[in-house]
Amino acid sequence: MEKIRVAVAGRGNVGKQAIEAVLAAPDMELAGVVSRRAGAANEGAYKTVGDIAELGKVDVVMVCSPTRAVEAEASKYLAMGISTVDSFDIHSQIVGLRAKLMGIAKANGAVAVVAAGWDPGSDSVVRALMEAMAPGGITYTDFGPGMSMGHSVAARAINGVADALSITIPLGTGVHRRLVYVQLQDGADFDTVAAAVKADPYFAYDETRVTCVDDVKVLMDVGHGVSMSRKGVSGATHNQMLQFNMRINNPALTSQIMVSCARACKRMAPGAYTMIEIPVIDLLPGEREGHIDRLV
Amino acid sequence: MEKIRVAVAGRGNVGKQAIEAVLAAPDMELAGVVSRRAGAANEGAYKTVGDIAELGKVDVVMVCSPTRAVEAEASKYLAMGISTVDSFDIHSQIVGLRAKLMGIAKANGAVAVVAAGWDPGSDSVVRALMEAMAPGGITYTDFGPGMSMGHSVAARAINGVADALSITIPLGTGVHRRLVYVQLQDGADFDTVAAAVKADPYFAYDETRVTCVDDVKVLMDVGHGVSMSRKGVSGATHNQMLQFNMRINNPALTSQIMVSCARACKRMAPGAYTMIEIPVIDLLPGEREGHIDRLV
Repeated sequence: MEKIRVAVAGRGNVGKQAIEAVLAAPDMELAGVVSRRAGAANEGAYKTVGDIAELGKVDVVMVCSPTRAVEAEASKYLAMGISTVDSFDIHSQIVGLRAKLMGIAKANGAVAVVAAGWDPGSDSVVRALMEAMAPGGITYTDFGPGMSMGHSVAARAINGVADALSITIPLGTGVHRRLVYVQLQDGADFDTVAAAVKADPYFAYDETRVTCVDDVKVLMDVGHGVSMSRKGVSGATHNQMLQFNMRINNPALTSQIMVSCARACKRMAPGAYTMIEIPVIDLLPGEREGHIDRLV
Repeated sequence: MEKIRVAVAGRGNVGKQAIEAVLAAPDMELAGVVSRRAGAANEGAYKTVGDIAELGKVDVVMVCSPTRAVEAEASKYLAMGISTVDSFDIHSQIVGLRAKLMGIAKANGAVAVVAAGWDPGSDSVVRALMEAMAPGGITYTDFGPGMSMGHSVAARAINGVADALSITIPLGTGVHRRLVYVQLQDGADFDTVAAAVKADPYFAYDETRVTCVDDVKVLMDVGHGVSMSRKGVSGATHNQMLQFNMRINNPALTSQIMVSCARACKRMAPGAYTMIEIPVIDLLPGEREGHIDRLV
């Protein structure tokens, strides 16, 4: 069987682990890595280039950019007829991103899988499944304790911040505290930075505490977790208790899910999809009947 | 929007609750109930008939028969061009059932959703998703404590058994004990019955203890549960910990999942599918974008 040729665009936390996940996938071949810092790092078992055209045929590109750069990046590749997977994580803008990429993907015979991480992503699949199992009731998603990559990147982007770490603390029933540790640039004013963090849409809706530290690096730990619970109603029967928990390395899981979704790009009709629109069997390598026999 | 007309075939534990779940579904209309004991029970808000032809147009029929009658029942309805949902639960025979119903469904423009309960069913979706999240590693499924409907029906079918209850006890890491309580028919020999229970394929692979009781009814409690856990590898990162737990009313959940799968019959191309082949969004009523906005 011909292997799926996958490129990784971006060499941040997720990009680095996406490379490992592609190399570990039995049905994929790493076409190479696209990075603005291409020249400096042409070591290792793969090619690093500044322009994807240098990689020859690419079936799918993993867009491992900061969330706010995803739309432009994904649009560029889709317009070239290359399918994309991203882990865009601003929940309220996913419908819009999907709609924008839908047209470009269809016009160019490509597939875009959007918001393919763990939340949004695999957690979304579990939430949808829980609703199908118990249509009445409430689902709570409790994150952490753990570092939020999206929130840390957002904090780092604020004026005067040299480095930042945002830790999510679960307070139960979907309520969270954000602990933001910032390392200031020379001459930056802490109160101004703290106010800007709290005003950012990533932080504005939660209790956020900002602390100034000398060195953010020593606080880093990319472990994370989630606990989702639903108490609901199946038919006319109340008190159905459903729960999903995990403790995971965050960029490793995000990039693995992106790689699993890269398979779906070869199996879905052209268009843009979130994970709840893709049959889970299409995330797995190999033949369908074997999976049905083993997993169903 | 036109409602999906759903019939329920069978009035056992699952059939009764399937009626409630259809009545609670905002996008469905109960076409009626098919039962061999039709005449005796034409009370209530719905029609009970002996032959589905008496119900007018039916889009989907919920096949709520004992597992071993599912193939014949589903085949009959599919041949009439009516889509089917069943909760067939003999794991090792699902690939075969799907293959048999596939041809009939396609030939008649209908959809069959097979093995649509919680295990096989929603648990299968979670197991497949966990593999996509951490392709290396082992998943353990621990059932109970709780009454197994499939195992109880199997025990009841054994010669000399007037009534039976099979309780599944989780011993951890996918190992179970079966506690089978049997009420004997007059003149039946307990040792013969116990040996026949232990030899049945439903029980042959687990530690099974058979106890003779005067009255099975007073022991009945249809609460059940599962704990699934996977410790696995995402990319090159080990020790990813994933877990799904639930405590539920068993026939209520089974029938609700069947009803949710009835929706997918209207959305999938003709053919036979297990739940891991169906996008979870297609199990939910209403428009896609609302679900994406709310759940992703």
